Formats: sequence, structure tokens, C-alpha cells
Amino acid sequence: MPNISIKGMQMPESPIRKLVPYAEDAKKRGTKVYHLNIGQPDIKTPEVALNAVRNANIDVLAYSRSEGSDEYRTKLAAYYKNRDIHVSADEIIITTGGSEALLFAMGTVADQGDEIIIPEPFYANYNGFATSSGLKVVPVISSIDTNFALPPIGEFENLITEKTKAILICNPGNPTGYLYSKEEIKKLAQIAKKHNLFLIADEVYREFAYDGAEHYSILQEEGLEDYAIMIDSVSKRYSMCGARIGCIVSKNKKVIQTALKFAQARLSPPTFAQIASEAALDTPQSYFDEVIGEYVERRDLLISELQKIEGVKVAKPKGAFYCIVELPVKNADDFAQWLLEKFEYNGETIMVAPAAGFYSTAEVGLNQVRIAYVLKKEELLKAAEILNNALKAYNA
Amino acid sequence: MPNISIKGMQMPESPIRKLVPYAEDAKKRGTKVYHLNIGQPDIKTPEVALNAVRNANIDVLAYSRSEGSDEYRTKLAAYYKNRDIHVSADEIIITTGGSEALLFAMGTVADQGDEIIIPEPFYANYNGFATSSGLKVVPVISSIDTNFALPPIGEFENLITEKTKAILICNPGNPTGYLYSKEEIKKLAQIAKKHNLFLIADEVYREFAYDGAEHYSILQEEGLEDYAIMIDSVSKRYSMCGARIGCIVSKNKKVIQTALKFAQARLSPPTFAQIASEAALDTPQSYFDEVIGEYVERRDLLISELQKIEGVKVAKPKGAFYCIVELPVKNADDFAQWLLEKFEYNGETIMVAPAAGFYSTAEVGLNQVRIAYVLKKEELLKAAEILNNALKAYNA
Repeated sequence: MPNISIKGMQMPESPIRKLVPYAEDAKKRGTKVYHLNIGQPDIKTPEVALNAVRNANIDVLAYSRSEGSDEYRTKLAAYYKNRDIHVSADEIIITTGGSEALLFAMGTVADQGDEIIIPEPFYANYNGFATSSGLKVVPVISSIDTNFALPPIGEFENLITEKTKAILICNPGNPTGYLYSKEEIKKLAQIAKKHNLFLIADEVYREFAYDGAEHYSILQEEGLEDYAIMIDSVSKRYSMCGARIGCIVSKNKKVIQTALKFAQARLSPPTFAQIASEAALDTPQSYFDEVIGEYVERRDLLISELQKIEGVKVAKPKGAFYCIVELPVKNADDFAQWLLEKFEYNGETIMVAPAAGFYSTAEVGLNQVRIAYVLKKEELLKAAEILNNALKAYNA
Repeated sequence: MPNISIKGMQMPESPIRKLVPYAEDAKKRGTKVYHLNIGQPDIKTPEVALNAVRNANIDVLAYSRSEGSDEYRTKLAAYYKNRDIHVSADEIIITTGGSEALLFAMGTVADQGDEIIIPEPFYANYNGFATSSGLKVVPVISSIDTNFALPPIGEFENLITEKTKAILICNPGNPTGYLYSKEEIKKLAQIAKKHNLFLIADEVYREFAYDGAEHYSILQEEGLEDYAIMIDSVSKRYSMCGARIGCIVSKNKKVIQTALKFAQARLSPPTFAQIASEAALDTPQSYFDEVIGEYVERRDLLISELQKIEGVKVAKPKGAFYCIVELPVKNADDFAQWLLEKFEYNGETIMVAPAAGFYSTAEVGLNQVRIAYVLKKEELLKAAEILNNALKAYNA
């Protein structure tokens, strides 16, 4: 064995991953597992996107441009215009998923040793991208008691040092389902401008805003043009998680020029998936109406069922398809494992994501889990029933 | 404007990129440009790969496993077995191109501030991946005068410090076309074992070994199992550069476990492209025979034409589809730009990659260019004629 310590840059483990073997064992025992643990929707991908790939006339599956094809970026700019986000094709770089867009954004604004402030709980992989880039995540806590609203400006300002290069938000939020209001975005814009920080917004759940609430993009905020970097993805919008197409969008030319250097190093985003993503822009509005209607019904059902369970606290999400649920247990990590390892209810159980992995601060969120409502209503109903019975058994 | 310096981790510019606007201008003037500057083959992608995507039965384009689909990895292990490389599916992680495999390999074996030794000239993007990971590339010079053979062991040993974590080679080499012999791989294995270093080999051009020479993989070297990390890609083998599928292969379990954490952070490799890549493994041998035959003819023609040009020195490549060409000019960078900006021969010109970008040492390779013989023979013939006339005009 090489006598070399493999620290792997101390990449964090995925908060869900360590439960996977337990889920596999449960299935081997014949137990049905409802997957509430990941954001893989069961919604069908638009036919128009799949057909474009089926019918693509390809002889040589060649590299595309590093920044993505002109056709796709031009059409994407038109999509944004329809959402009152005014950007041009050359303010967009197509990436391999929102994941790569986040990696490029971090590498662009920060150098090794720099800091990025992120309201927590946050999407766990932000930690991975920061770690592999040598950056430090500085968390600012948002609370289930205020429904995960934006923490007061003062709390951000307390954390700003000369190494702070950006604030990163997810809007609507994974794992909270929180949708920032226009006023909250304006507050963040003020901090960014006052302290010379970039504001990076992961807006991949843009379309998933409920109850008539309107998503307000950081790119709609006047005067923020040079500070705003938006992250996007087709994964959730068109239920195309496996495409691996996202983008980084900014009106700051230096940002785009610099991000392009990262894009050039990895040559190009995937070609088949770009064809699908370009075609997906022609998805009829009826698709979204149906999908959003379905998610609202799922959310309403799930939240109402969860609220019936004794000792359970849940913040009603205004967007995305996740919620953070506080459970009457001490250690949700242990409970989540127990659900898969020891429990079943009529031959079924549930898999949830322990929320501690979504907090960067130690010892916070230990009694919380994230639930993704990406299953059909009848399945969510069963899942809530399983959770109710599981909590009784676990606490008995 | 935010008063923040965007250093973008000092990502290097692509050595070709700055010439692109000049090439575009030349085309606008009506000048035909022969692209000898990039490794985008004109070879057709196997039908079996394209058909698999056309006929795939997809409802929801879902995430695959982070390590790639079981089916593809299992079939890929069988492909390696046929090449006397004995690995199992769980020793393979599917990545988004060889690019991502390199990024994961570097992040796995090294931490920010660590060093990786690479024989130069080397594939320019190695610099980009190292930079974005916070690593330092330490070059060891190989020379056109020895046809870019492995530098003496002593030269490696002189460069090893306590921060050195790995030696990275490209075999066969981009940009040199050099194919390491079994003896050279054994020498590298000795250094790796003696000094506790990982040996990372980028073997994406494995199939492109000419004149009866056999490619010897680092994974074939007995006793090197724990030190060897192999990088691979479908891009060149099946002319599927736009798929963006590669892999990282190692028999060292800790390496695979650690690389998997990077893979999990970015969720999954692209699904369409995995389908194509799995099917591509059924490409008949006749496809490769034809392709390799074609490249040998292109190489022989190009090298013989280049050798006729006064003042030109070229090492005959034994693999891949590149060669480094020394020109009778002082500054190949200036010459390459001049070719696009000022020159034409019967309405045509050529685009080449200045080789300085493939060296990490300053002031080396200034009179060299890399030529990719990815064009048809009649085009290569014309390209050589253009080069001959251009050199006369430039030096006049």
C-alpha cells in the first residue's frame, strides 16, 4: 500500500449515502421503501425533449462550444425574457448540471482560502463544491421557527471578513422549500453592494413557486447587475435530472469571461443533453400547470398529514418540493437508519434524509429530516402513516 | 462594479482559445481554415452507439448512480479484460468525460498546496484542473530531440518533495503522440513505489497505437495495483467527444471510495451519453481497424510532407493523433496568429496550436506547434503545402 494519506481534500460524505446500504438490505428483506430522501421526481420528461434526441441527425457526436451551443443559449435567453429576466446569450454559459455551474461560480469569485456565506440549512453538496475548490463555507442559521426566512442582515454582517467573497442562496430553497420575497432579495442586494460581495442564487426551482407567490430572481433586481450570478438547471423544471445540463448566468462580463476559462478546461457540456434541453424550452405551459398543480396537492396533503402527527413540526414550503420536518426524536440520523434497518409497517417503510447534513454548524438540526414530496399522493399518504407508526414504535 | 478582484483561481487561458477570434475573422474574409488545432476527429461515431440513444425507452430522464450505471460498468470491465486489464465494475467510476476523471483523481490523491509531477509538454488542461483544485504542477521536461521519451528517473527524483503526491502521464501522449514502452512504465512504477507516489495515467488514446506497437497500461503492471489510477474516455475511441463520458479506474479501494465522494457531490454522469457509451462497446473490430488504418496513413503522409519543409523538425508519433512540430520561427504564437490574420494561399490557411501552452516551464517550446492529424489525407496534403508557403512568406 502506498504510504500516502488520502485526505481527498476532506470531501464531506453525502448525508443520504450512508443510508443506502440499509435501504438495499431492507429491499432484500422484501420491505417496500418509499423514497422521500432524494429530489428525483417521478414526473415524466416532456416528450418534445425526448423526441428531439431520438430524431437528432448526428454523424459525429462532436464537442459543442465550451460555453454551450449558440442555438441553445439564444433560445434560453428568450425563455428568461419571458420571465422578466433580461439577459443575452453571451451572458450565459451552459454547464454540466447546476452542480458544475456552482463549481464554476465558486472558482470564479473566490480563491483558495476565501469564504462564502450561506444561510443554513443548505443543499449539502454546496459543501462538497466549496471543499474541492478549497473554500470555506460560513453558515448563517435560519430557523424552522421563522419558517426559514432570511436571517437578519446584522447576522450576515457579523460574519463578513476580508476573505468573504460571496453570499450564496438557494431560492426556492432545497432543503427548506422557502421562497425568498422581493424584499428579502432587496436586503441581500444591499449587503452585497455595501460589502462588495457577489450574490450567487441557485434558482433551479424557479418554476416551483406556489400559492400565487411570484419568484423574484436576483437578475431582476436593478443595480445588482454586476454582483448577481444566477445558477440554473433543467433537472427539476423538465424532470430531466439525468440530462446534466445547467447554466451560470451573469451580466458581469468579467465573471462570464472567468467562468469560461473553467468551462474551456473541461471542453464542453454534453451534446445529447443540450439537444434535449433546447427542445424542452418548447414544452407547453399546460405541462407546467399540471406539474405545479400536482406538487401543490402533494404538498398540501403531506403537510396536513404531518401536522396530525404528535410532536412533529413542519414549516409549510412555498416552493420547490422539499420540507424540513422536526421529529420527536433526539437523533434523526439514528431514527432514519432504524426506519430502514429495524422497522416495517405492513411490509413497508420510508427513507428520509437526516437534516444534520444540511447544516454546517455542528449539533444543529439533529432532530430534523428533509422530506422530498416527489411521490404520488397515495404514496405520500402511506408514507405519513408509516412515519406516524414508526415514531410511536421508536419512542416506545 | 463590485470592488472585488476576480482572480478566478488564476485559471490559465486555453492555448488555442485566443486564436479563435482570428480564425473567425479569417472565415469572414472568405478564407478557408484547415483546423489542425484541435483533437476533434472527423471520424463517424459508431452507428450502434447512436442507435442505442435513438431507441432508448425513457419516460423519466432520471439520475443514474453517481458511480455510473451497473450495466455500463460491468460491460466496461469486460472490455478492459479483453485488453488484459483485469478490473471489476466496482473499481470503475464513470465520469463526465476524461476531464472530470482527472479532476477527481487530482482531488483524491492531493490536497490544496500539494504537487503533481508531469512530463512536459503535456495536455494544457492538466494545468486548469490542477489550478482549480489548488495543486501545483511540477513539470519535468521531455525533448523533441529524444522524440519525447521518458526523462531519466533522476530528473523525476530531483523534483520529488514531501508535497509530491503523484506523477501524471498521458499515454499515448497528447500533444506528443509518444507511446511509452513497457520498460518506461516499469521505470515509472519503480519511482512511484520507492517514493510512495500515485501514478496517474491518462490512457484515452489507448487504441491509437501504431506500427504494431502494443499499449501497456499501468493497470497491467504487477505490484502497482495500489498506486495506479487510470483515466479513460470514450471521446476519441468512438469519436464521441460530445458524449462527455470517461472514467477513473483503480484497484486501490480507498482511491475509489474517495473519488466517489467527488462523484456524489455532482450527483451523476449524463444518462443519454452513458446509454451511447455502453452500446459503443459493441462496436465491431472492423471499425477500429479502419480508423487506425486511416490514422496511420494520415500520420505517414503528414510527417513525410512536414519533413520535406526546410527548417522543420518533427518527431514521428507512435500513437494518438498529434505531433509536436518545431518550426523555423522564433515565436510560434505570433506565427500562428499571422497565419490566420495576414496569410492565405489560394484562399486557404491553417490553424495550429502554439506549443508553449503545453509547457509549464517558461520560454520552452516557443518555436513549436501541435498539429492534430484529424483531417482527411487530401486536406492534410494541402495543409502541409500551405505551411511550407507560409513559412517562406513569414520568414521573407
